[in-house]
Amino acid sequence: MADEAVVFVGSKPIMNYVLATLTQLNEGTNKVVVKARGKAISRAVDVAEIVRNRFMPNVEVGEIKIGTEELESEQGRVVNVSTIEIELVKA
Amino acid sequence: MADEAVVFVGSKPIMNYVLATLTQLNEGTNKVVVKARGKAISRAVDVAEIVRNRFMPNVEVGEIKIGTEELESEQGRVVNVSTIEIELVKA
Repeated sequence: MADEAVVFVGSKPIMNYVLATLTQLNEGTNKVVVKARGKAISRAVDVAEIVRNRFMPNVEVGEIKIGTEELESEQGRVVNVSTIEIELVKA
Repeated sequence: MADEAVVFVGSKPIMNYVLATLTQLNEGTNKVVVKARGKAISRAVDVAEIVRNRFMPNVEVGEIKIGTEELESEQGRVVNVSTIEIELVKA
């Protein structure tokens, strides 16, 4: 099993991402990085909090990083979008 | 001047919060904590990123904390809402 996995949070129901994270951690992955950008950032925080508070209290929040990515819009304009990465680590 | 200030991000235009943060930092406050909950979390990340990338490159992101608050809805139901706190520190 890989030592680290990434769950990229988008616009699907939030429990999909919670389940993906729990599956990784239960299968032996020690660290899951929950990533999101734009409006999905608040949902990534929800995923991390639900995993910890409701399902796996032995999981700790590690480093949290924020950043900015440049995306090109359909009109060719470059737009900046914020990003987040939340590490969830098995204690 | 206080050594630490809090900017609470809600649903006003994002530049209001950027300006509030810049004002604090320019007036001598060393640390501004940008806080938000729920859907405003992604906007708090935007505020931190815009302050750093566009206006004050000498400001660093310090500790980032996430958490959960219990709110009571109008129907008396308790709902969980995620929170974020992003420290911006003058280098």
